[in-house]
Amino acid sequence: MTTTEATQPTEALDDAFHVFDTTLRDGAQREGINLTVADKLTIARHLDEFGVGFIEGGWPGANPRDTEFFARARAEIRFKNAQLVAFGATRRAGGDAASDPQVRALLESGAPVITLVAKSHDRHVELALRTTLEENLEMVRDTVSHLVAQGRRVFVDCEHFFDGYRANAEYAKSVVRTAHEAGADVVVLCDTNGGMLPAQITAVVSTVLADTGARLGIHAQDDTGCAVANTLAAVDAGATHVQCTANGYGERVGNANLFPVVAALEIKYGRKVLPEGALGEMTRISHAIAEVVNLTPSTHQPYVGVSAFAHKAGLHASAIKVDPDLYQHIDPERVGNTMRMLVSDMAGRASIELKGKELGVDLGGDRALIARVVERVKERELAGYTYEAADASFELLLRAEAEGRARKYFRVESWRAIVEDRPDGTHANEATVKLRAKGERIVATAEGNGPVNALDRALRVALERFYPQLAKFELVDYKVRILEGKHGTESTTRVLIATTDGTREWNTVGVAPNVIAASWQALEDAYTFGLLHAGVEPAE
Amino acid sequence: MTTTEATQPTEALDDAFHVFDTTLRDGAQREGINLTVADKLTIARHLDEFGVGFIEGGWPGANPRDTEFFARARAEIRFKNAQLVAFGATRRAGGDAASDPQVRALLESGAPVITLVAKSHDRHVELALRTTLEENLEMVRDTVSHLVAQGRRVFVDCEHFFDGYRANAEYAKSVVRTAHEAGADVVVLCDTNGGMLPAQITAVVSTVLADTGARLGIHAQDDTGCAVANTLAAVDAGATHVQCTANGYGERVGNANLFPVVAALEIKYGRKVLPEGALGEMTRISHAIAEVVNLTPSTHQPYVGVSAFAHKAGLHASAIKVDPDLYQHIDPERVGNTMRMLVSDMAGRASIELKGKELGVDLGGDRALIARVVERVKERELAGYTYEAADASFELLLRAEAEGRARKYFRVESWRAIVEDRPDGTHANEATVKLRAKGERIVATAEGNGPVNALDRALRVALERFYPQLAKFELVDYKVRILEGKHGTESTTRVLIATTDGTREWNTVGVAPNVIAASWQALEDAYTFGLLHAGVEPAE
Repeated sequence: MTTTEATQPTEALDDAFHVFDTTLRDGAQREGINLTVADKLTIARHLDEFGVGFIEGGWPGANPRDTEFFARARAEIRFKNAQLVAFGATRRAGGDAASDPQVRALLESGAPVITLVAKSHDRHVELALRTTLEENLEMVRDTVSHLVAQGRRVFVDCEHFFDGYRANAEYAKSVVRTAHEAGADVVVLCDTNGGMLPAQITAVVSTVLADTGARLGIHAQDDTGCAVANTLAAVDAGATHVQCTANGYGERVGNANLFPVVAALEIKYGRKVLPEGALGEMTRISHAIAEVVNLTPSTHQPYVGVSAFAHKAGLHASAIKVDPDLYQHIDPERVGNTMRMLVSDMAGRASIELKGKELGVDLGGDRALIARVVERVKERELAGYTYEAADASFELLLRAEAEGRARKYFRVESWRAIVEDRPDGTHANEATVKLRAKGERIVATAEGNGPVNALDRALRVALERFYPQLAKFELVDYKVRILEGKHGTESTTRVLIATTDGTREWNTVGVAPNVIAASWQALEDAYTFGLLHAGVEPAE
Repeated sequence: MTTTEATQPTEALDDAFHVFDTTLRDGAQREGINLTVADKLTIARHLDEFGVGFIEGGWPGANPRDTEFFARARAEIRFKNAQLVAFGATRRAGGDAASDPQVRALLESGAPVITLVAKSHDRHVELALRTTLEENLEMVRDTVSHLVAQGRRVFVDCEHFFDGYRANAEYAKSVVRTAHEAGADVVVLCDTNGGMLPAQITAVVSTVLADTGARLGIHAQDDTGCAVANTLAAVDAGATHVQCTANGYGERVGNANLFPVVAALEIKYGRKVLPEGALGEMTRISHAIAEVVNLTPSTHQPYVGVSAFAHKAGLHASAIKVDPDLYQHIDPERVGNTMRMLVSDMAGRASIELKGKELGVDLGGDRALIARVVERVKERELAGYTYEAADASFELLLRAEAEGRARKYFRVESWRAIVEDRPDGTHANEATVKLRAKGERIVATAEGNGPVNALDRALRVALERFYPQLAKFELVDYKVRILEGKHGTESTTRVLIATTDGTREWNTVGVAPNVIAASWQALEDAYTFGLLHAGVEPAE
């Protein structure tokens, strides 16, 4: 078949170990993910760049979007590392593979590799497939050998293998043997319900390997929170094919997360499973895929999360200055991530200096300046500010100390917000701001769906002709916290705001006895930081 | 010491296995978490209710907030299951434990159990502690035996144990032996940098157990995504003490997550580690703690995530109709979670009925009534309400359905709040409410330090002569969350308010596009609930 040419990798990796990605099929089962064909093509490009050996693209024939994906992937993508895999089922009970339309669709996809899902749990054969145990084996044998005869490489996913093994080990193993003897290259043991723990996986995989002689793979779901460990446990027992999804996307809790699995194999096992340099792209690729599926990247994902190398405790910070290895299991740059120091009242001079470096503000070891910043941070944190979650406000504070004065794009004279609940149950929100910018005095009023929104709008109305850049700024998150639990509404209020200009996101903080005044401060910082990083010169 | 009485559990669990929670200490290291003393007390109550054996509350002496927490916990909480644990370090190099102020602060906390952190990695002793290996052992010996002599139970956390073991196994083991011989009940092996994998943990723990004879514990960080598996791997090797945090909160990626660890022990290992019935509260408690720390509960957390038993695949859905066990590793009700098919379907009939019983509202198995409540909860949760963290609002909803009408102590006609920032930097906050109570129409205006406070005061002014009980009500916490992260101030706002009358505390919720309007709703519910439970008859 010439149809497979487009999907042949140009730099084939060693076949002795397979990194098999199923983000586009099993990952898409995650609640909230709904991929278009264009999304799937973009993700496939990212995965190929990352260097996985196999990309399972979907179930051609069963789903028109997947059929289209295979056609377009063959035409549009020149894979450097990956082979495209079509997923499908064994033929119908009582039929034959050669004339089964579902099996034909797999061949017609042009994918050089086909993963067949097969039942290996006796109860599922009877209840879900409604056929005999013997016929199920025949379905595996017939479908595998037919596809192999058509020149395809075949992997077999044994669905519910571990539960099946517990119920009827002999039958589960007979499915593995049948697939292997019929010509499947890899037989994948699937923990479909995700209930296994690593020690159980190691025991079962070792036994099955010894008893069948088949090349084995592992497919783990994360329902016990052990999918990464379960995948590695199977590798420890001799599996040489791991099925994962980017960021662990998948049904229910999710699948084994590709990134920590690959990082463990490369860094902890010293096993080369990616092309040269790919591991250093991991953080970027993880976040890029999250963008495509439209989910916020998990901040606490191992290796690639924005918090994965963030240090808070002062004790740690001073030790890290001596030697970062003291509090990090790896150098974050190996996976394309960076160390971050969180500024908090637990932090001292060491973390302020490191933080300055991170933000591109060189404190140049100026001890007096650093001491001033530490003092200022402590004083502000005592008043209720928190800079750990407000990098942008911290950067403004740092620059103000380093440059001797705060950057000002406008000077506020006063503002007012009114919220009114009317007898008909509707609300009116109105805000007025009075300020000076570039030598002019402006008074602007706006309405909003809340008082902060009304203030935000009034501020934009007042400033937009001086700073058209503001049109791109959007508030994307807003958090309020009352400090000191014993006074309720009489306490200090802290507001954290996240703002985006469509490219980057920044966080600012405001503190006041009053939620509106605190919001206003955070808004002012957000505008100032945004204008500063848009390269606008301070006018005041 | 009589000071420890308040923290002695009334229903002591079996000591053979320890579930040790460190959410309040190590968990608080997570980026974005900043706990007040009131937050810590609330979390301690939740953890005690869940049934952990030990709650590590912080580092008294090192941090004034932690010192206050121990004082207040002893005075205010009557623990049912847990013992309170103070965390601290071994004495200073060259000093002696009896006169070390940091060690004294641990004793003064009144906690019956003390966890001491000790260095067990030779390089850390030299670089971070700047002392000799022999003096470090002496610091362990002296501090442990001093605290034991003072009647405390002592656990020793061997920081960086696994990295230390790799660097110098003999020295690492000598720290374990020293702590054990000095009288430490448990020596905890810490994977401080979180770089370990389960097979390594099993091997090291087995060897250390055989070589030292000490009772061992495990403290795992999640940097490889294996903290739960690492914890279980240590248990497999003979550790009988597991240190975890609620929802896996902790520095960098986080700590071993309490919930999947405990679920694995109870369900997969068949080991009873919680009081009867506690596992069924796990989902609720996980979410309640997330609310306290003001983080959105992770939707994909094993066992307790809202997606943990959510089924999307058509294939799965039809099989589940035949038998739910076919696609679930456990019955979700065992952990207080529910199966969901595509549409959000959180509150089932059974949980509503149980919740009613818990609140003292007997639904008497009235199927039509229960169905109405389920419907109403679904509708309100869709609009953004959450009743998991707002029991009082839920009770009002339940009573309104059961009694056919809402309890009303007053009827609001309209209200208005004005916030003004004046040129001199001060703020004016003024609110006016117009309402009817006991047949009279009242208009009242008040000032406050913020708009919600001004509204709260205006409401009191209006109502105090009808309901003198209001004088005792005090707002103690106020939380705001913006729902749907993509619109900022234009989104729906959810406000959670905690109110106390000096004896009990209750939580109410309000949802509106407007933070002030949402606060007003939560305030109204808070007043209504407070008056109801003060035995006041509704007047309207």
